[in-house]
Amino acid sequence: MAQRRAEETRARILAAAEACFARSGYDATSVAEICQQAGVTKGALYHHFPSKQSIFLALLRDWLDRLDAGLEALRASASTVPDGLLSMASMTRLIFQAGRGRLPMFLEFWDQASHDPEVWQATVEPYRRYRDLFVAIVRAGIAESTLRPVDPDTAAVVIVALALGLLLQGLLDPQGADWGLTMENGMQMLLDGLGQHESVGAGSPRPLEPTNLSG
Amino acid sequence: MAQRRAEETRARILAAAEACFARSGYDATSVAEICQQAGVTKGALYHHFPSKQSIFLALLRDWLDRLDAGLEALRASASTVPDGLLSMASMTRLIFQAGRGRLPMFLEFWDQASHDPEVWQATVEPYRRYRDLFVAIVRAGIAESTLRPVDPDTAAVVIVALALGLLLQGLLDPQGADWGLTMENGMQMLLDGLGQHESVGAGSPRPLEPTNLSG
Repeated sequence: MAQRRAEETRARILAAAEACFARSGYDATSVAEICQQAGVTKGALYHHFPSKQSIFLALLRDWLDRLDAGLEALRASASTVPDGLLSMASMTRLIFQAGRGRLPMFLEFWDQASHDPEVWQATVEPYRRYRDLFVAIVRAGIAESTLRPVDPDTAAVVIVALALGLLLQGLLDPQGADWGLTMENGMQMLLDGLGQHESVGAGSPRPLEPTNLSG
Repeated sequence: MAQRRAEETRARILAAAEACFARSGYDATSVAEICQQAGVTKGALYHHFPSKQSIFLALLRDWLDRLDAGLEALRASASTVPDGLLSMASMTRLIFQAGRGRLPMFLEFWDQASHDPEVWQATVEPYRRYRDLFVAIVRAGIAESTLRPVDPDTAAVVIVALALGLLLQGLLDPQGADWGLTMENGMQMLLDGLGQHESVGAGSPRPLEPTNLSG
């Protein structure tokens, strides 16, 4: 019972901190403001978290753990690698829709990471894990012949780049596009390629010189 | 003569501010520190810039103007759209190599933009200009039949996402890859597509069911 209450308090502090960070930024947010927003005393807050930074790192870990679980579930349930990648893109769509207010947090993580070694470590470690996950996914796609025999390392960072780059554009210009839909269409585009090439069963294959596209 | 000296002072202040912002972040940098780094008095600094934020915005504008000029030059000199896109990717490689220390500035821009309406305006306006530039480039590629008849708006944000997403990964994990080379290879991959498809002149076309790849 006491433990459950402690967990509720912890969750309330995290939610309050997330709201404060998103509103004012990490630097401008004081522990006092987080306490006020959460409706807890400083004593209660410091019982759970030794510092503002530790709240920040807990938020980061929670966020990454949820993302991790979601990606793994989609990977496990997909019949082919392209199917799985498209499902992951759809999940991102849900993240965009559900988490509008939370997205600026994401930028805070990255900005803090570039200045603070502890945050950097907490960010780069899961980043490398995701990258490795996508390397494994691309390898599986090549093995099952649904992906071309591309370099898995490059393909993995390109997939991660698509997700990060769309997230960043969505943060900067929320009204500029339907970002969730763009994520799905963008992933499809990455699978198909932008360059002209002979497509199976296309109406009229045109004679082209695909010099730059066949490398 | 006086004007030339004024321009030199302005440039020195900008370079000093960029170094300070990159080292300590925007919030933690004081005008006094920028003065010290630049070797100018506060009076001289305020003669050129009314506030720390105005220095920040001038840096942003300079950075974007240089990028703009570079992209336009490459676009104008390329024989085909894919050629032009690959040249732009190579330029990014040079940016990575030349500007390691400057890259954290980039994150500062985005983080500030998410909190400050004036910075947001100064960031979102050129962002939309780049996006429009790539929409026009993709349209030209479709017209010259070197690009498939994709949706130009989606393709443009996907290209911008690739650049932003690789930049962000390069910031977070500088040793994690040869980011410049990855930009070139990633652009080639975006042109080619990840998904398996019949390629012109390939040795052994395999019978596949490209259900997810032909959309």
